[in-house]
Amino acid sequence: MTMAFISSPLDRADHLRRAPERLIALQHHPMARHLSIAGDQVAYDDGQLVNAAPAEAGTIFLGLAPDGAPWFANSATADAPLIGLRALMLSGELDSDSIAILAQARSLVHWHEQHGFCAACGAKTAMQDAGYRRHCARCASDHFPRTDPVVIMVVTRADRMLLGRQSSWPPGMYSALAGFMEPGETIEQAARREVKEEAGISVGTVRYHASQPWPFPARLMIGLIGEALSEEITIDGNELEDARWFTFTEARQMVQGEHPQGLTAPKPYAIAHELVRAVLE
Amino acid sequence: MTMAFISSPLDRADHLRRAPERLIALQHHPMARHLSIAGDQVAYDDGQLVNAAPAEAGTIFLGLAPDGAPWFANSATADAPLIGLRALMLSGELDSDSIAILAQARSLVHWHEQHGFCAACGAKTAMQDAGYRRHCARCASDHFPRTDPVVIMVVTRADRMLLGRQSSWPPGMYSALAGFMEPGETIEQAARREVKEEAGISVGTVRYHASQPWPFPARLMIGLIGEALSEEITIDGNELEDARWFTFTEARQMVQGEHPQGLTAPKPYAIAHELVRAVLE
Repeated sequence: MTMAFISSPLDRADHLRRAPERLIALQHHPMARHLSIAGDQVAYDDGQLVNAAPAEAGTIFLGLAPDGAPWFANSATADAPLIGLRALMLSGELDSDSIAILAQARSLVHWHEQHGFCAACGAKTAMQDAGYRRHCARCASDHFPRTDPVVIMVVTRADRMLLGRQSSWPPGMYSALAGFMEPGETIEQAARREVKEEAGISVGTVRYHASQPWPFPARLMIGLIGEALSEEITIDGNELEDARWFTFTEARQMVQGEHPQGLTAPKPYAIAHELVRAVLE
Repeated sequence: MTMAFISSPLDRADHLRRAPERLIALQHHPMARHLSIAGDQVAYDDGQLVNAAPAEAGTIFLGLAPDGAPWFANSATADAPLIGLRALMLSGELDSDSIAILAQARSLVHWHEQHGFCAACGAKTAMQDAGYRRHCARCASDHFPRTDPVVIMVVTRADRMLLGRQSSWPPGMYSALAGFMEPGETIEQAARREVKEEAGISVGTVRYHASQPWPFPARLMIGLIGEALSEEITIDGNELEDARWFTFTEARQMVQGEHPQGLTAPKPYAIAHELVRAVLE
């Protein structure tokens, strides 16, 4: 298994978003797929994604699959059989391409559900461009879906790496430090700031490794590897319960589930796992 | 000159955001700086940033400077002498550290000005956490400042690079292709999608180079270098007026302002310049 949510096969076919007649025709295409989403749950039954009926209002166009099938997403109706997207991803029942499409669908449906009003004036807004814009008729503001960049970094020092844990996580699991980016900073500055805030460690060189969309609700995980300039850890108790330097030997045991004290690292679906492995390799 | 907006010296001192008494004391600190912002203009007079009076309501805490000075930002009053941030940056009158602090201030002030209402329910919201959150008392939603990731990429093929131009740009200027990221895609997927949409070119390997905050209004520019898999350009007339393959020799002339037909590349303040230079080097 590799990182989740990164293998969407869809062509988003941006030009179709402003062609409503063509989209209505595509909704009734014999191969059309209609995903139903409610919160972070998706309509799923009998080992398959439930293909809902076409719904003209509030339909989000996700894109065209390589086989020509157009994919859409809607808010689920009350009677839809639902499963959590996270649980479905972990179950391995569904192919990784479909899981990645669900990430796009979940992020967009959630954005519409939470953004029915204009942040500039408070009036109701309406979906436009097949789900990629909301427009306010009162003040003429346009609103676009959010994508929230998050920096996540494994920091190394000689043959050790810095990992931490939050109290809400499964017991014994340690992971890379992470945090939301803020306006007015570079990726590298944000990563250094987060590690300094959470663990008191100063970081020098920062190297980009990979990125991952994380649809809870619409994060962009930016995966980094950094080199520590200091060693003494000072934990910010608000964010972390613990942070430690682990030798590469220990980290390898944690990844493989063979750590003598039962400590673990994140599973392969998470970019944190990918970062730990990248350091070990 | 290097890229603009990347050299903020401030410690954002996140822990102070939820310590209102300490922040009020810091506002009256003898070294306190109070920036005034209106749209993309800043209060500036006689070659200096105007230091406004402390204002308890609606004050955003930017951070602590290395000399101990606390920096704040507010919406400008009607009588403030204003200059465009872009013009100020281009003028070179102000040091690059202050320009970078202004980027943070401008993005945050703009976000508050455009987000006075709850997108979830339409009620008025109130600033919290010294400017890093807005809270809705009616539906209890929390809202956080936006940072909109944008991918920007120079694509190469042997000894040529792909640059394009929008009709609104200065005549003869060509730059890297760019576009907003969407929910559910990786950085690399977004960059390939944008180049395919705008110029019809397929891109293989994508390499991260650098990032830059761009405060118009709150973009995170993610700078990439890609390798083309195809050569024939098909321009999407909606986004670009033209796109061409330039030899490295031509691109060097454009960067140096010595192109025989007077074509130019972006100036050093822009990450596009940095990307072109990185390819040439």
